[in-house]
Amino acid sequence: MRTSEAMSVASSRPTAARGPVLTFTGDPFRDGLETTMVHQLDAIVAMADGRISHFGPAERIARELPPGTEVRDFGKDALISAGFIDSHVHFPQTPMIAASGTQLLEWLDKYTYPTELKYADKEFARDVARVFLQENLRNGITTSCVYCTVHPQSVDALFEEAEKQGLRLAAGKVLMDRNAPAGLRDTAQSGYAESQALIAKWHGRGRLLYAITPRFAGSSSPEQLAMAGRLWREHPQCLMQTHMAETRDEVAWIRELFPDRRNYLDVYDHHGLSGPRAVFGHGIWLEEAELQRLHASGAAIAHCPTSNFFLGSGAFDLFRALKNERPVRVGLGTDIGAGTSFSILATLGEAYKAAQLNRQALSAGHAYYLATRGGARALYLDDRIGSIAPGMEADLVVLDMRSTPLIDFRMNQAGDLAEQLFIQMTLGDDRAVRATYVAGRLAYERRAV
Amino acid sequence: MRTSEAMSVASSRPTAARGPVLTFTGDPFRDGLETTMVHQLDAIVAMADGRISHFGPAERIARELPPGTEVRDFGKDALISAGFIDSHVHFPQTPMIAASGTQLLEWLDKYTYPTELKYADKEFARDVARVFLQENLRNGITTSCVYCTVHPQSVDALFEEAEKQGLRLAAGKVLMDRNAPAGLRDTAQSGYAESQALIAKWHGRGRLLYAITPRFAGSSSPEQLAMAGRLWREHPQCLMQTHMAETRDEVAWIRELFPDRRNYLDVYDHHGLSGPRAVFGHGIWLEEAELQRLHASGAAIAHCPTSNFFLGSGAFDLFRALKNERPVRVGLGTDIGAGTSFSILATLGEAYKAAQLNRQALSAGHAYYLATRGGARALYLDDRIGSIAPGMEADLVVLDMRSTPLIDFRMNQAGDLAEQLFIQMTLGDDRAVRATYVAGRLAYERRAV
Repeated sequence: MRTSEAMSVASSRPTAARGPVLTFTGDPFRDGLETTMVHQLDAIVAMADGRISHFGPAERIARELPPGTEVRDFGKDALISAGFIDSHVHFPQTPMIAASGTQLLEWLDKYTYPTELKYADKEFARDVARVFLQENLRNGITTSCVYCTVHPQSVDALFEEAEKQGLRLAAGKVLMDRNAPAGLRDTAQSGYAESQALIAKWHGRGRLLYAITPRFAGSSSPEQLAMAGRLWREHPQCLMQTHMAETRDEVAWIRELFPDRRNYLDVYDHHGLSGPRAVFGHGIWLEEAELQRLHASGAAIAHCPTSNFFLGSGAFDLFRALKNERPVRVGLGTDIGAGTSFSILATLGEAYKAAQLNRQALSAGHAYYLATRGGARALYLDDRIGSIAPGMEADLVVLDMRSTPLIDFRMNQAGDLAEQLFIQMTLGDDRAVRATYVAGRLAYERRAV
Repeated sequence: MRTSEAMSVASSRPTAARGPVLTFTGDPFRDGLETTMVHQLDAIVAMADGRISHFGPAERIARELPPGTEVRDFGKDALISAGFIDSHVHFPQTPMIAASGTQLLEWLDKYTYPTELKYADKEFARDVARVFLQENLRNGITTSCVYCTVHPQSVDALFEEAEKQGLRLAAGKVLMDRNAPAGLRDTAQSGYAESQALIAKWHGRGRLLYAITPRFAGSSSPEQLAMAGRLWREHPQCLMQTHMAETRDEVAWIRELFPDRRNYLDVYDHHGLSGPRAVFGHGIWLEEAELQRLHASGAAIAHCPTSNFFLGSGAFDLFRALKNERPVRVGLGTDIGAGTSFSILATLGEAYKAAQLNRQALSAGHAYYLATRGGARALYLDDRIGSIAPGMEADLVVLDMRSTPLIDFRMNQAGDLAEQLFIQMTLGDDRAVRATYVAGRLAYERRAV
């Protein structure tokens, strides 16, 4: 029943997109781009019942398609990719992007919490959820891992809107029982009960997934962290998301709050809050022991470069996290509203800059992996989304590789695919997204320019 | 004769722009925004013969205008400002924006020098100059301080195109006699002679200005620096531009090359290459003694945040440079092609992030000052450009404060002017520029969206 609900949103009629395709069959950080990156200059991706039914060279696939399949040809200046994945974002902060002048802890008190108080009103939450999801589609994001507010109705509003779009989306009610204004606090017990009810209502309904969401150790008491750990043990198929080691001041504060724990990760780990499907936002200031434990437990870091620069938190050392001896799963996050762009291309451009500040070079191919299959792997969803292959869910982004006059000029000088991709992530923005498919349905199409 | 040539490009017919206006009457870093920032909600800026003839509340100015003045009303969602000033940019690198994978010194060898070799061909140079100037106008930049290549014809090409547009623009032939490929080297003597000829031809012709341009101490021998110093003494009204302390590796290398000099600035200063109208690109890794000397000599730093992140050079400490006891003049630079955007708004957003990484908050008002009057002051042109007042040259940018769906949504939540301006510099790009006036002529207008 639940599955059929979601599939009703998916296009039942077979459809197909034709053009150059980029996708990944494995992890280029581990095995190199040569063996993991697939680039076809003229391919067809056919979709039916919400999934990819065919993928391959256009000439061959065209002969295999069911009669009546509508093939949309995007032309040689397009690039068809799996939809982008945003592994860390706060939908309620959409109205407060670009709130300036402060660093993390003061920013929370001055801007975030006052804004989040408004989500007691479900209709306000719904209005913002619509804008948020529309921005996702405008930027080719087909899956995101979303923090709502402490209010269960903010979760309902987001999931209801996401369900209408047929999106594979993970979200959860924020748990926070201390160090926040009265209207934004739950308790260990109420947070547990409300989350449990939301899991029962939403997790696994259509393509929706629930993420148990203690905001961070500064705003959840040990009792609440313990209850979150219990809840996750009871629902291990849910995701678990929280923040960790975003700024040095925060790390120092958490050390004061939890003097008995070995390090920041141990605050969570102690309560069973690390493991597969755990997604830790930021992780800039982690020690080697924490990275080793993340690797061993199978948890992921969400790297949010625009946010880290905006709040002055620091430049995440991606290649340190990915070290071959103990690679940590890493996804990419916009972290709206501390992040400054819904554009995954722009976010990749800033990820390149964060790596450069660590004297490392992030290639375009590796970057696009992070935004697609790598993000899916961080969320343990790479068997369903993040790459283009028959049987995968049909979430696609179609890029326009010549979306502005400057990009057009620059592409005329560009050599290989790597350079062309790099131009997009350095100069591209929402205009570079020509179309977005969700579960085989054309969910967004850019107006003619 | 020369002046009349330039003025023939300026609109002779009186014209005017109406809408909200933002401008500065002084330095907000020194005297605060309260006494230096002017914001009028409904003003008219009238222009005649290339200059601003009237500025004030629309109702009053409308009565004072000569009959037949065409008043263009941009409406309440616009913002009229003095044109933006880019104090550091390489026009020949326009075709190589987003050349990835390396840091400064390797980036020069791998990408920059091979690209610059092409400018021996003047027609190639002209084609790029046109694209470059068009991008400037699309982004509201009405004055830039430009590095050409070592080839005099690259300077001719740029100035010829800038003259057609009537732009106030500074540029110069790069001097480089070592550590570069053969086709890009001049000699101390030939660089001097060619620069002298270019000064005679271009400096003061219409609104054009010559900038004596030793690339940097790594690519100019002591003899060439001495000749550059001599040339500047002979033509003290020219600008002098070079690079300094962009990366730590570069600083270490310069120390090896010039063991007798006290510090990096002293390499230039020793040859008379510091003083009013000197513009030093970057200056991230300067010592206190160098900042004191920059202040004392009246030289300026061009802060290029997108470039500094892109090459991993570091985060310039703006507030250290501006320290009240010995403020250094600071302008803003796109530094195309290591910079990643022609948008001055985007560049301000990245300047905010660079300041945040230094735990300092750059307010929007202060940022817009840097992009206009502050930049003009860095170039010693603030008596002519950078602010809106009768008698100033009529270079304007008209911003659209609701240029994308997300900005439009965010503006609905915005409170005061500071927040509205900050939204533009965080989320805005070329689309935010609705029109650009050069010397009173509407030189660019965005297509309807």
